[in-house]
Parts: sequence; structure tokens; C-alpha cells
Amino acid sequence: MNKEKKLQASLPKGFKDRWGDELNLKNKLVDTIKDVFINYSFEQLETPEFEKSENIGSFLAEDETNPMSDVFSFVNEKESLTLRYDLSAPLARFCAENFRDLVFPYKRFAYGNVFRQEKADSARFRSFAQLDADIIGDVNPSQADAEICNIISESFKKIGLTDKQFTINVSNKKILQGLINDLKIEENKQYKVLKSIDKLDRLGIKGVEELLKKGREDQSGAFTKGCDLSDNQVLEIINFLNLKEIKDLKFNLKNELSIEGINELEELFEVLSFGNNQDSISIDVTKIRGLSYYTGFLVETNLNFKVTNAKGKEINIGSVASGGRYDNLIARFKGADYKGSGMSIGIDRLLYAVNQLGKIKVNKTKPVLVCILDKKFIQKYYEIVNELRNNNIPAEIYLDQNKNLKKQLQYADRKKLDLAIICGENEFKDEKLTIKKLNSSKENDQLSISRNELINEIKKLI
Amino acid sequence: MNKEKKLQASLPKGFKDRWGDELNLKNKLVDTIKDVFINYSFEQLETPEFEKSENIGSFLAEDETNPMSDVFSFVNEKESLTLRYDLSAPLARFCAENFRDLVFPYKRFAYGNVFRQEKADSARFRSFAQLDADIIGDVNPSQADAEICNIISESFKKIGLTDKQFTINVSNKKILQGLINDLKIEENKQYKVLKSIDKLDRLGIKGVEELLKKGREDQSGAFTKGCDLSDNQVLEIINFLNLKEIKDLKFNLKNELSIEGINELEELFEVLSFGNNQDSISIDVTKIRGLSYYTGFLVETNLNFKVTNAKGKEINIGSVASGGRYDNLIARFKGADYKGSGMSIGIDRLLYAVNQLGKIKVNKTKPVLVCILDKKFIQKYYEIVNELRNNNIPAEIYLDQNKNLKKQLQYADRKKLDLAIICGENEFKDEKLTIKKLNSSKENDQLSISRNELINEIKKLI
Repeated sequence: MNKEKKLQASLPKGFKDRWGDELNLKNKLVDTIKDVFINYSFEQLETPEFEKSENIGSFLAEDETNPMSDVFSFVNEKESLTLRYDLSAPLARFCAENFRDLVFPYKRFAYGNVFRQEKADSARFRSFAQLDADIIGDVNPSQADAEICNIISESFKKIGLTDKQFTINVSNKKILQGLINDLKIEENKQYKVLKSIDKLDRLGIKGVEELLKKGREDQSGAFTKGCDLSDNQVLEIINFLNLKEIKDLKFNLKNELSIEGINELEELFEVLSFGNNQDSISIDVTKIRGLSYYTGFLVETNLNFKVTNAKGKEINIGSVASGGRYDNLIARFKGADYKGSGMSIGIDRLLYAVNQLGKIKVNKTKPVLVCILDKKFIQKYYEIVNELRNNNIPAEIYLDQNKNLKKQLQYADRKKLDLAIICGENEFKDEKLTIKKLNSSKENDQLSISRNELINEIKKLI
Repeated sequence: MNKEKKLQASLPKGFKDRWGDELNLKNKLVDTIKDVFINYSFEQLETPEFEKSENIGSFLAEDETNPMSDVFSFVNEKESLTLRYDLSAPLARFCAENFRDLVFPYKRFAYGNVFRQEKADSARFRSFAQLDADIIGDVNPSQADAEICNIISESFKKIGLTDKQFTINVSNKKILQGLINDLKIEENKQYKVLKSIDKLDRLGIKGVEELLKKGREDQSGAFTKGCDLSDNQVLEIINFLNLKEIKDLKFNLKNELSIEGINELEELFEVLSFGNNQDSISIDVTKIRGLSYYTGFLVETNLNFKVTNAKGKEINIGSVASGGRYDNLIARFKGADYKGSGMSIGIDRLLYAVNQLGKIKVNKTKPVLVCILDKKFIQKYYEIVNELRNNNIPAEIYLDQNKNLKKQLQYADRKKLDLAIICGENEFKDEKLTIKKLNSSKENDQLSISRNELINEIKKLI
């Protein structure tokens, strides 16, 4: 042990411990959503945190000039490993590796932490949990994409949100791509145009317009260089961003690729009409998802209630469940070519929001404390705690036979326990037990029961 | 997408995907053991995979000459992060950081993957899951240590092993340390002596004796240099390794530190006698645990059934649940000084063994497949799948309305589904449904039921 220099107990920035009520709520969210996935006939897949670096790949990068800037890579003389950035790249690798053993359509769900080297804030961590559901295989796209929308909606309802509290926004990448082709925007500008549109939520239509033109000065005076589009190009894009319904899209867009996207959206909504989740699903063509691997259907889920940061300031928490159709992701690998569609729920971000809502109940049975009143009966105290545990009643025996009862009840009090069992000479002689209700405000907070009624009586009280 | 060069779909060495039956079994093991921990009144803690490198620390190293050789570290200009090597170092950091908010004794459990840069084999991975339970605080050590033994035993019984199928070996580090002091073995040799003894399982008493003396040549002819102890020192250690019971230890060891260790062991066994798990707990002074941070009580759990590797060769799977008392681990940090005792179950290793045993049943309800016989009734097929799901019956609708029934039943067959629902014009007209039992060998494998009896009939069949 290092005796000279003591260590500082703290976590690196962007990482977080979870425990107590917050962790109980997280577990409840995860368990509930997993059950929805299983109910929808998705089966679990668990892949390791590490992949070969080339399989995580630069296509995920936010920063085109430094494609590996936002991943954690580990390089030694023999190999280059990268921690997964999402659960989709590992899924693509897994399908390409095991397609002979899988039955297609392969519907899998996955739960695990992903890792990003990015600037952390209140609800954005460098390691955070995702819960994904994906459908891989050559199926009817509208049916598969509808399944993805339905599973998001079901998940959010099952955790206790009303359909007013969230909106599932869907779009199709082909619609905007068609417009971009039509407007003859140079290929090297296209990514920047998409990134500019993606800032709509934050900057509003005016801000996006500036970014599409010469550029934008923010409140601090910092200037972001724009895309330098022509006035007509900007006008057409801004007009597009105001389109809200399929009929408007159809009327305004005549490009072949756009029409293909609009038709796919229409077919999706037809299948969605067979389900129970239409009320929570909207068209929003301004949702364009940063990731370049999407090829058609896009989905983003936003929460319709206020979320504040640690300083009490309202924040835009962003999408809590997003995804889309990726028809080429698996084809990156040798010998495999499968289409896919899926979505990912950002569990830590969702937890952050839902925790503030404070409306979701997590019932946890608190353990019963067996106190040690007199050391000479220690065997009998252990008999009691064993009996409780054997009957699946969480229980603990106070772990220091040398501490007095006051200390033991202080412990129970600090842990906010509900019940303690106290027995001494008299109780054991009469084959009785005393149960103390710890949170009772009444004077009569002690119950004397017969020893053999232990389990029945405790079950009534918890 | 990279069009020129396609990627190779494979995982780096030492990592593994899990899915299907194996993952179902893993989930069952984890869920069952978590329930035991909760029943024993441990509460969950979740810490991130990354810690500051200095907090993972060199004290965990197997290789003294290169203390960071077996961890994954990420270093950039601003920080040095290391993936956790176990769940104990993060626990120590967490307790030191949050002791003001914790109630002591603090009993926590944790589940998560840990990361080791070591040579991988059949049952040894570079990322693997541990399930830990620890008790932190100034409590009666024999009570706390007994709780740790009991929780191991309960966990192994609850997953379905008999108490003949595993042995919990306990010891106390002070006993051997006292002997080493007595024998005046130089400090720079002590670690090597411990490592030599630790190889007893693999090399037998003869092999250890050679390692304690000049050294040992293995079957391949490779020579391992020994500890170069005197004949008397070796004799005393070998005699010690043959001691099996507390009374033998008491008779043979007169050193003060050894006697302290023996007394602690005796007190532990007294508390264990108040529980139900004595039959699975043995004294084994040859179990010494590699980690230097243990200070007294030690525990290792071994399986008493054969486990083979991928080639069918019997392997020594090693300990599947181990730990001990660490009274100085948290004191490495500024401002905190708490004693601790705990254990860690190696889930992936346990899974590897238990999977081979093939005796643990995992019941998974298979989804019901709703087939699409006639496209024009698609809305009605969705009504059926919705109704099943709303009643918590896992269900799927075939995801391609354009495929024929034969294709759909082939899918069900390959997925080994039990039930498919088939309806066409006639059924819908008569308000009936046909349920097809897919795994039935009988000719009469179809059931015609009334449409409104769907849920009741399906519940009878699953």
C-alpha cells in the first residue's frame, strides 16, 4: 500500500456513479423497456465493449478532419482496439460474422454502455447506457420501420409517460437528399448543409438561414462560417423546413428521390395506422440525424416537458430515442449484405429527464433489521434473519454484536428502514418477538407477536 | 461508406459475443444472484468503467516489474484514464469520495464488466463480468466475513448447484504471513514465495517444493527459477500446506500473527455455525489470493465437477468466487479510513462451467407468430398481434406482407417457434382463428378457435 502519498478520491470528468433512488429508477426503466422488447419478440445480444478499431470506423465521426477524435482507442504493437461508440457498429460486425447461424429477419435488442470522447455536461456523459432494438434482413421496410416506431412508443408509455409527454418524429433521408440533388449543392458542401439544418432546434429558422448563407455570429461574438449557398438554394431549403405534412411534401417536391422518400413515409404511416401509437408519432422533415449511414427512414424522439440542468436552467435534452434505416451498414463487411432498421434509447439521458419529472414510482422492499440485544442469544438472532431470508424477505442482522441497541437503531434510522426486530431474555422465554415500526409517528409503534407468527406478521407489514 | 476495401467481420482475441441459450443462462445466473444479494440487504452501486489511472493503481499488478502491464489505459495530453481491473478499486474510491452520504456499515453489490490485458483462453476473457458484494465499515469482522461466506453459498445453491458441487475455501492471510515472518524469509522473496504456493492446484506439492527451492523444469523443458529457500524453510512451508484443521494449525504454529489469524478463523466458523451453509465451507490454508491488498480473511470458491475446454480437454477453471478482508484499501485515499470485506463472483467463468453441466433450466416464452395469409387483411393481422402483446404474450407479425405462407412457416421453423396463427378469408368470415402447433409430431396439429377466445386459448398453449 502506498503510505507516503494519499490519493484523491474522484472520478474523471464526464463519468458518474449511480446508486440509491436514482439507480433504482434506472433499473426500472431498463427492465421495463427490455420487457417491451421481449414482448415484441426481439432477442438479446451482448457484444463486448471492444471492437477492432477499423470496425468502429471513421464513418461515425462528428469531426471529419479527425475521424477518430471522438472514440477511445487503445493501440499497442500488436493491435488497435476501440471502445464501441454505439451498439449499431457491433451489431453490423456480429451479423456479418454470424449470418450463417442467424434466422432472418433477425430482431435483436442490446443493452450496454457506449463510450464517447466528447465534452461532457449535465446530461451528456463519456460513458452512457443505450438500449437498442434492430431488425436485420430483407423484409417489407414499412412494416419493419413501423415496428421500430411502435416499440419506441410502447417503451415510453410503459415507463409511465403519457403520449403528450413525448413525440416520435419521423422522416426519410431521401426527401431532403432529393432536394439537395435538385438544388445542385456541391458534394463537399452537403455534409455542412445537413449539420446546419440539424441545429434548427437550437438556433431557430433564422439561425439556420444564416448558417446556410455567409455565416452566423453568436451572442458571444464568435463567428461560424456558413455554407455559402446561393439565395435561391437557401430559400428552397427554408421553404422545405416549413413543410409539415405528406400532402405539402408531395405538392412541393418533384425530384424522383424525394418522391421515393415521401412514398416510403406514406407507406410507413399506413402500417402505423394499424397500431395504437399514431398519436405519439409526427412527421418532421427537419430531423435529419447526424450519422451518415442512414439511408431512408429516420426517427427521433423528443420529450415535451421541461428539463433543467444542475443550475436550474432549462436545457434542450435532445433526442432520447433515435435511429433509422441503414441499408448498407452491414455491407461494409466482406461477404455480407443485409438491410437494417433500428433505434437506440439513451437510457442515461432519459433517466436524467424522467428523474426530474419525479412521477415514476419505484417500489423497493426495505430490509428488516434484526437487532442484537443480548450477545448470548446470537444464535437465535441468526435463526430469525435466516428465516426471513428463506422466505424471500430481505433482512439483515446488525453486524456488530458488541454495539448497544441505541447504535443499532441509529443505523436503522439513517438507512430509513421500516422494521426492526428486537428480542431479549423475556421475549425468548415467552417465545415471542417484538417488531418495532421505525417510521411510525404513533406512540404505539411496537408489536409483540408469537415467535412462530414471524413470517405472517412481517408480510402484513411490508 | 467505404466501397473499395471491405472489412473483416471478427472480434479481437479474448472477447466474446453472447446470445441465444448461453445469454439466457447468463442472465438467469446474474438475476438469481442479484436477488440473493438484495435478500441479504446489499444495495446496488454502479460505477463507470473508467477511473483515473492512479486510482486503479499498480497494487493490482501480477507483474511487479511492469505494474500497468495488465490494465487498459488511455492517455492523452490532459488525463490518464484506466478501465477498471476489478470492482473493488472503484468501490474504495467511491467510499472515500462519498463517505459523508453513506450509512456504515455500507453493504453494496455491483455488477459490471472488468478489463484485463492478459492472455486469453477458453474461459478467460479480456473483458468479463463480475458480481461483487462487499461490507464496508467498522463492524465485527467475524460477522461480516461470515456474511460474505453465506452469500456465496446461497448464490451457488440458488442458481441450482448442490453443496457437493462447490467448495468455499476460507483461510486467513495472517496465518501464513506469521509463518513467513517466523522463518525470516527476506521481504524481497516473500511475494515470490506466495506466488509459488499459489500454484499448488496446478503443480501439486512436489512442484511447489521445487519452486521454493532452486527451481522447476516443466514438461516442455522450460526452467522456472525458484525462491532459493533453505531446506528448513521449505520443510516448514510444506508441512504448513498439509495442515487441514484449526486444531492442527493451533498445535503447529506458535507465532503471534499466525495465532491471531487462527483465532479469527475460529471466530468466523463460530458465526458460520449459526447459518445453513457450513457444509459447503472448508478451511484451506493453501488458498492465498494473489492480490496484496488483503489483510486477513480470504475466500476462494472451487467447483467440484469437470470442466473441459473447446478441445474436450479437462481444465482447471480456477476460483469462481473469491475475495477477502481488506482493511487498508480505502485508506489509500485522502481523508478516508474504512475496513472492508467482500467477494467477487466471476460470472463469465461460472457461466462457462455451469453451461457445460447442462442442468440449469432457463424457461423462455417463445413468441407467437402471426402469419400474413392474405395482404388485404393486414389490418386484422395487426389487430391480432397487438392483442397478444397487450396481454403480455410475446408475439410477432411476419414482417413481409409479400412473402407466401410457406416462407413464413420456414421462418417459424428455423426459429423453433411453437405457435403460429393463420387466418384467411374463411376464418375472418366465421370470426375464427387457426392456431398451428409447429413442433407437434401429431397429424392433428391445427386448432380452430373462436376469435374472441384468442388470449385464453394461447395462454393454455404457452
